[in-house]
Amino acid sequence: MNERLILVTNDDGYQSRGLAAAIEVARGFGHVFVVAPETAQSGMSQAITMHNPLYLRRVRQDADVEVYAFSGTPVDCLKMAFDYLLRERRVDLVISGINHGSNSAVNVLYSGTMGAALEGSFYGCPSVGLSLDDHSAEADFDGAVLYGRQIVGRVLDAQPALPLCLNVNVPVGRPETIRGVKLCRQNRGFWREEFYRREDPRGREYFWLTGEFIDGEPEATDTDEWALRNHYVSVVPVQSDLTDYRQLKNLASVLG
Amino acid sequence: MNERLILVTNDDGYQSRGLAAAIEVARGFGHVFVVAPETAQSGMSQAITMHNPLYLRRVRQDADVEVYAFSGTPVDCLKMAFDYLLRERRVDLVISGINHGSNSAVNVLYSGTMGAALEGSFYGCPSVGLSLDDHSAEADFDGAVLYGRQIVGRVLDAQPALPLCLNVNVPVGRPETIRGVKLCRQNRGFWREEFYRREDPRGREYFWLTGEFIDGEPEATDTDEWALRNHYVSVVPVQSDLTDYRQLKNLASVLG
Repeated sequence: MNERLILVTNDDGYQSRGLAAAIEVARGFGHVFVVAPETAQSGMSQAITMHNPLYLRRVRQDADVEVYAFSGTPVDCLKMAFDYLLRERRVDLVISGINHGSNSAVNVLYSGTMGAALEGSFYGCPSVGLSLDDHSAEADFDGAVLYGRQIVGRVLDAQPALPLCLNVNVPVGRPETIRGVKLCRQNRGFWREEFYRREDPRGREYFWLTGEFIDGEPEATDTDEWALRNHYVSVVPVQSDLTDYRQLKNLASVLG
Repeated sequence: MNERLILVTNDDGYQSRGLAAAIEVARGFGHVFVVAPETAQSGMSQAITMHNPLYLRRVRQDADVEVYAFSGTPVDCLKMAFDYLLRERRVDLVISGINHGSNSAVNVLYSGTMGAALEGSFYGCPSVGLSLDDHSAEADFDGAVLYGRQIVGRVLDAQPALPLCLNVNVPVGRPETIRGVKLCRQNRGFWREEFYRREDPRGREYFWLTGEFIDGEPEATDTDEWALRNHYVSVVPVQSDLTDYRQLKNLASVLG
């Protein structure tokens, strides 16, 4: 029997509780190979490291779980795994997460978790980003592990057409409060920021970025935001062609 | 007369030659307001800075051009401009670039230039990312300035429907070798990386990320890669909904 190989990464770093939860999800499906950031990489989107050297070290090796810490971004971690460490080996599925905080709506674009998940889908296997709508240090990952296993199991069984990348967001709360899984589209919306201004001991001003999400379609019932608000696990399939096909037609008269 | 306000940023930093070229593009259209990264931010995608304070300083103030350097990512720069520095003022257009190196095909996802351009389009004005297919320090920006002006002028005149974000890539070479402008879709393709392994003086191994672009559809003639290879300026309108609508249907039987 060829045992399956599940590649795991995240953006909160190799020591995070969410990574341990992702390993729990992956464990039942095969050998677990982890390359995760050395340090927290939230908000790193699909960033890659172009001008700095990157350090790699193995931090754990058990019979069924290997863990590497890598000093780059989440996408760097996936590239290191696929193009250096695992080059000859077939990967059956990528899991990125479990993120501390949801990545619904436009957050998919800023998210290091989803940056890595999208990158995973470029390597010829299904890829699943898992996020929990709870930032607290004591977040309860039971629901995310339960639904993560269910979704990963179904994807591995059904083997849908590739490329396939899923943005899965799990609502806060105990598993029994979750009402099930909803396939959704990405909610339209954006962030408006508030910068907190401070002064350092030498009188230089500095800023903290904080913000508020503006839901661009609060009435829509087929979006990930709606699903999460209504205690469903949201699943949005995502892809990497950003072409705005509607504008492509509109602009023919302007730029054609 | 209300003078137009053009907001400029980039990912190569406020001191780069490409930023000076973008200011040349913007200058003919109104007052130029620049918030650009303090340091090089290539490959930063749509990353935001969540866990570090950010420093801002004004580095230039002329009658028609103001320049701020900000210690964050390109997207942080745009947020600082719109949500703090310019809060009460109407911005007519965002220009991000001119990038040293093309951002065609899947590079749009890794690009800090295009991360900022996409972010600009969330603020209710047209947004144009400009990149030159030349990484050399002596790159000739004349063609990029000429075609940048032409495209920005047409967008400001025609006022197409919003949101509007353009990924403009200009081929290397003198302006007279450029054959014109092509509206295109994003080429499918991906990178395969080669990691250069080294050892530091203490015997720790480290890696440099390098790679090769694999064109997923070398025969297609309607993509940005084709246009650039054939000495056209490529213009791809891009948008932020990553939903894979085809998979949304496919998956109904698997996860619905």
